[in-house]
Amino acid sequence: MNNQIQPAYEFAVIATDTVIFTIQNNELRVLLIKMKKKPFADRWAVPGGLVLGDESVDVAAKRHLMNKAGVKNVYLEQLYTFGEVDRDPFGRVVSVAYFALIPSANVSLKTTAEYADVRWFQVNDLPKLAYDHKKIVKLAIERLRAKLTYTNIVFSLLPDEFSLSELQKIYELILGKKFDKRNFRKKILSLNLIKNTGKQQLGSPNRPPELYTFIKKQLENIQIL
Amino acid sequence: MNNQIQPAYEFAVIATDTVIFTIQNNELRVLLIKMKKKPFADRWAVPGGLVLGDESVDVAAKRHLMNKAGVKNVYLEQLYTFGEVDRDPFGRVVSVAYFALIPSANVSLKTTAEYADVRWFQVNDLPKLAYDHKKIVKLAIERLRAKLTYTNIVFSLLPDEFSLSELQKIYELILGKKFDKRNFRKKILSLNLIKNTGKQQLGSPNRPPELYTFIKKQLENIQIL
Repeated sequence: MNNQIQPAYEFAVIATDTVIFTIQNNELRVLLIKMKKKPFADRWAVPGGLVLGDESVDVAAKRHLMNKAGVKNVYLEQLYTFGEVDRDPFGRVVSVAYFALIPSANVSLKTTAEYADVRWFQVNDLPKLAYDHKKIVKLAIERLRAKLTYTNIVFSLLPDEFSLSELQKIYELILGKKFDKRNFRKKILSLNLIKNTGKQQLGSPNRPPELYTFIKKQLENIQIL
Repeated sequence: MNNQIQPAYEFAVIATDTVIFTIQNNELRVLLIKMKKKPFADRWAVPGGLVLGDESVDVAAKRHLMNKAGVKNVYLEQLYTFGEVDRDPFGRVVSVAYFALIPSANVSLKTTAEYADVRWFQVNDLPKLAYDHKKIVKLAIERLRAKLTYTNIVFSLLPDEFSLSELQKIYELILGKKFDKRNFRKKILSLNLIKNTGKQQLGSPNRPPELYTFIKKQLENIQIL
């Protein structure tokens, strides 16, 4: 860093924090780690960490996601940059927040020496969070709810093949309301988003449900609801 | 900044850059400033600047918007944080990008000693830009186009009172397509977004158009098109 930058502009440390969502036991859940160090000992936080000098912010987010939650190649989107002056007691740390969506809770919940614990929490029943992470999680939930209505983002929470009931269930869990089965199916099928695989769900007794798959697995704006 | 942060994590400077849009002469335009200093002498850039040590990132964005473009109290939204390692030749500068929308080009285009020039450019006819600002402007245009379809954001580009033709014109200019007048009006009026003021546009000869106003001037998700 050369001296053309005036000293009035203090330097900051850049961090990334990622809100990881999944559907587990019919609940929308978020992954939290329990911290060991003061001043946040025993507080829960969203997994994240600092950005190295030679890595881009987006790459750092992927690295922390892999190292701290054991996941890669999942849906990851930048959420918002939190830049309040006093948000971290260690000094000026600007956090670029992301959210990730994973199809099912197959994350390896392995506690490292760095943390006291790691656990999935139902989004409506969160413990007290460190830093400004309550604000970060709240914004991530709002963004996810909004995007369910005007994009095809739901693909990132489902397995490759799924039944229409499973799809509807995800909408109901995240948006917190019920949909009429017949209208919901009619709407979803009219959008040309998913196609019938010709297969049926195994292990179902009479009338096994048909399995569908997404035609495209890339984010697109499309009015769903 | 105390030494609990490991030296491996280099410090960065935080900047904000704001893409300012307006509608002028039936074109979607963006405000650019012409730089004086090497290595970007005579290149155009989006107005912005560094974040002070004692101000939040969002506050810095508002300060630069006021100081460099003379506007305040306009629609301002965080766009994306650009964190590539080499994006600034002066060193590690992470840019939190925003976009602003102003109803008409009443920005004071006063060149300061810091810049060679300041000017509005049509978004499809931009000059060569400094840093990664081409990427920033491109993303801002995409975001604006998408938000026109699923939010009421258009309110921020219109004066307090406007005709339905003016509203339709903005959609056509930004999305780059024509809408059927009758269908467009029917759709817009069905959404409960705007109300008739009972007034008519002055200076119009026969059949002066009726003037409308937005019921709410806060961003909401609502399917428009």
